[in-house]
Amino acid sequence: MGDLHWETKLSHTTENGIQIRGYDLVQLIGTVPFPSVLYLLFAGELPTPGIAKLIDAIMVASIDHGPGAPSALAARTAASGGAPLGAAAAAGLLTMGKYHGAAVQDAMEAIRQVAELANRESGSVEAMSHAADTVVAEWRQARRRLSGFGHRQHKQQDPRLARLFALAHEAKVPGNYLASALALEGALKRSTGKDLPINIDGATAAILCEIGFPISLSNALFMVARITGILAHANEEIEQMPPMRRIDPVDHSYAGPADRDLPVPP
Amino acid sequence: MGDLHWETKLSHTTENGIQIRGYDLVQLIGTVPFPSVLYLLFAGELPTPGIAKLIDAIMVASIDHGPGAPSALAARTAASGGAPLGAAAAAGLLTMGKYHGAAVQDAMEAIRQVAELANRESGSVEAMSHAADTVVAEWRQARRRLSGFGHRQHKQQDPRLARLFALAHEAKVPGNYLASALALEGALKRSTGKDLPINIDGATAAILCEIGFPISLSNALFMVARITGILAHANEEIEQMPPMRRIDPVDHSYAGPADRDLPVPP
Amino acid sequence: MGDLHWETKLSHTTENGIQIRGYDLVQLIGTVPFPSVLYLLFAGELPTPGIAKLIDAIMVASIDHGPGAPSALAARTAASGGAPLGAAAAAGLLTMGKYHGAAVQDAMEAIRQVAELANRESGSVEAMSHAADTVVAEWRQARRRLSGFGHRQHKQQDPRLARLFALAHEAKVPGNYLASALALEGALKRSTGKDLPINIDGATAAILCEIGFPISLSNALFMVARITGILAHANEEIEQMPPMRRIDPVDHSYAGPADRDLPVPP
Amino acid sequence: MGDLHWETKLSHTTENGIQIRGYDLVQLIGTVPFPSVLYLLFAGELPTPGIAKLIDAIMVASIDHGPGAPSALAARTAASGGAPLGAAAAAGLLTMGKYHGAAVQDAMEAIRQVAELANRESGSVEAMSHAADTVVAEWRQARRRLSGFGHRQHKQQDPRLARLFALAHEAKVPGNYLASALALEGALKRSTGKDLPINIDGATAAILCEIGFPISLSNALFMVARITGILAHANEEIEQMPPMRRIDPVDHSYAGPADRDLPVPP
Repeated sequence: MGDLHWETKLSHTTENGIQIRGYDLVQLIGTVPFPSVLYLLFAGELPTPGIAKLIDAIMVASIDHGPGAPSALAARTAASGGAPLGAAAAAGLLTMGKYHGAAVQDAMEAIRQVAELANRESGSVEAMSHAADTVVAEWRQARRRLSGFGHRQHKQQDPRLARLFALAHEAKVPGNYLASALALEGALKRSTGKDLPINIDGATAAILCEIGFPISLSNALFMVARITGILAHANEEIEQMPPMRRIDPVDHSYAGPADRDLPVPP
Repeated sequence: MGDLHWETKLSHTTENGIQIRGYDLVQLIGTVPFPSVLYLLFAGELPTPGIAKLIDAIMVASIDHGPGAPSALAARTAASGGAPLGAAAAAGLLTMGKYHGAAVQDAMEAIRQVAELANRESGSVEAMSHAADTVVAEWRQARRRLSGFGHRQHKQQDPRLARLFALAHEAKVPGNYLASALALEGALKRSTGKDLPINIDGATAAILCEIGFPISLSNALFMVARITGILAHANEEIEQMPPMRRIDPVDHSYAGPADRDLPVPP
Repeated sequence: MGDLHWETKLSHTTENGIQIRGYDLVQLIGTVPFPSVLYLLFAGELPTPGIAKLIDAIMVASIDHGPGAPSALAARTAASGGAPLGAAAAAGLLTMGKYHGAAVQDAMEAIRQVAELANRESGSVEAMSHAADTVVAEWRQARRRLSGFGHRQHKQQDPRLARLFALAHEAKVPGNYLASALALEGALKRSTGKDLPINIDGATAAILCEIGFPISLSNALFMVARITGILAHANEEIEQMPPMRRIDPVDHSYAGPADRDLPVPP
Repeated sequence: MGDLHWETKLSHTTENGIQIRGYDLVQLIGTVPFPSVLYLLFAGELPTPGIAKLIDAIMVASIDHGPGAPSALAARTAASGGAPLGAAAAAGLLTMGKYHGAAVQDAMEAIRQVAELANRESGSVEAMSHAADTVVAEWRQARRRLSGFGHRQHKQQDPRLARLFALAHEAKVPGNYLASALALEGALKRSTGKDLPINIDGATAAILCEIGFPISLSNALFMVARITGILAHANEEIEQMPPMRRIDPVDHSYAGPADRDLPVPP
């Protein structure tokens, strides 16, 4: 061991294998689903079946947001200039900054603050409502944007939300953080006078709080999911489009398979 | 529709939802696992159960390769300089070039060439062996590196291989491309005089050929899986390590949970 | 010295300074202009005054190409998503692939091939014309795009060209590679029937050949110059624009200082 | 003009040219040096001769910091994995985060705070010293790192500093911000009890304050300069080194031209 010796708690290779958090990768292959091994790497332990299902659901909900998402457009722009697939995907990944794709972490922070503040008091509905008012006031005073609330695109409630909430209910999460998120929605209405309903980032944040997901890796979870869509868009650009085209961010349409229902499982 | 109008076959957003290749994303959430929705985005259709399991297995096999992988080191270096998590991950992603993480695509190409060449003849074992000799000779003449064969680290056979091959067998893949990969192994031995056994990239390539995975997105599959490990390493660097440290690529050890067995399912 | 010891010929730090190719950086500061120190790092020696002036001129010619360049658009897209300045610039840099910004290297290769082929014969105008025909035929057969010829935007001849050629003339370059570039222009006309006049990439390539600039770093020269414009665009986006806006690649106009002449030096 | 119309104050292309801040690029080529055109793009106006010389000097001072700089190591790591030159440079650029290469902007902010605070009082040496104490106390209370002071590598004073200060003196800058930087050095000593002398980032920051350089683009200036070194290191890795090597961050030596003096101008 030299002066520069350092340690990791994540993984290591041996002469004939790789260990992830103490588990033999070979045993994980084909036994534990990918989103659960992601959870193992990120959170340190294998998830319970309920948590495993929620992580998978959140990843599917984040996998793509159509061709007009900034990350897809940046990846296509890079691909159009002749970047290879990985470099184009990196350009897309770099587009996921504080406004796009990084909202979950901020929302988790606010939701946790509400829950902790309310718990220090009675934990009642009134206490939570009061705690949410306090957090909203503090964030507004610090001129900090409260992510996770308000729609950008969907006129009606984003239908992904009801689905995620139903799955959280099925997984029997305690529900304290979901209540905090709803309390924040109410407090925002009282404070701003505007309807700023919880959005997909806020819902994801509340569920990740419920399952104890590490807050510092919440955006990372989104990035793994979304880079999938980014890579698909970049590859379509490389394979189907003329190089160096002007990529209109709005004037595009869908030309793939028509709307269809999921096949009924046999 | 203006002059710049363009079309995608991947996905689109509507007023109240997102459609992926014609399927409502909301129906996919919690119903179809993440690796299968990735397959839908990349290949255009939902996978059969057998293919779904293989995609998941390949992603788990690729999720991390310990702290000494170049992509993990580059991400840690960026994080150590103060890069935020996404930028550090992008630095790691950019490290996956033609030598690291891009081998699967090249191997798929060679394996397909062998299979096609052999099929044009009798398709017999001899024909395949002969086809492999031809492909190896052509690649060597073009001074093109034949990826997917030969070990870098594992002294013995990488144990991930046997696991992946067993799963491919379970999924009842036809086996033609697996045979081509083995034929290439033999041809390399005859041509170079060296043992260059099929490695994890070659095995992944053969299985992806078996399930008709789009060759242009094979490296993308690896990137989605591996960026998970990259993000975990970058986050550990940000949270646990002093900034601006000299990161030794070899002198590190594992300090996480001791070796442990998978919990027995109830 | 351990097993991993390695060597560089570029630079090293000492207890009280930095040496670039053997020169004390402190002596270079304020004495040798930045483009000449760049040349020192890239080519190994300080440039002659004539070469120094040409390098500076090529860098100025490449510094920016307006808000519609793909690299500027990608950097703005990343900045608009909330990426910090450096990450946004990286997204722009990644956009400079084989079609955008990487043309100089390919053009240098073709120009050198013509010059070498012509020199092996008589070196006469006829020999050069014949050599250009040969190279064009070979590249077309290899389905390789001959960069550096043909306009994308400027209807008339790009006025940067005349300026660069005049400076090359002033610097008394031998002129052999400039002649090769013109020969390629003629050969392209004969081969394709189309007017594909030498463009800014081709002119840059010919001049870099004249001054013996390392071919592998020709795109790097362009990148250093252009990242300046990329950073200016990314910064304007961060400082002046609303986040998450849809960035139209065409529908923009200039609102800065009106056209003005250079101040007359005192 | 459509709904998405937007404006830039930087540059625009016309049918036969490019205008930078109102100046015809063609007129700038070969007339105005590259660092001055960079200043034009970043600051909006052409620099005075004194400022032009200082910008050039600061860029030369930042062009490279040897093979052990994190950005050089990350770029080499990416290149070693097979990344093309531009992607490798992007990986290096991403390494320039809050600890590495982003120090100038923070230092400018602190230096300006001291100058403004002192000016609001008498502007005397005592007022400046007092102002520096106040700023140091505020930054320490906010747990904000005061960049630009303290050495990482150079045991003695970094010789680049004396050179830059001498050039600033020659350029007859007013000197108020240089005095503020020195006042901060004193205040840090009083507050921490440690010698934390002004370093190259702090000196650069003070000079940029003196010449009114836009604070938001100070790190950008560093990035343009340093990406030159990053590209040189990445290219050396691609051309000279075996792929996929373990890159030791410390165990390397210099094998280029021996120490030499600048040629005496004729």
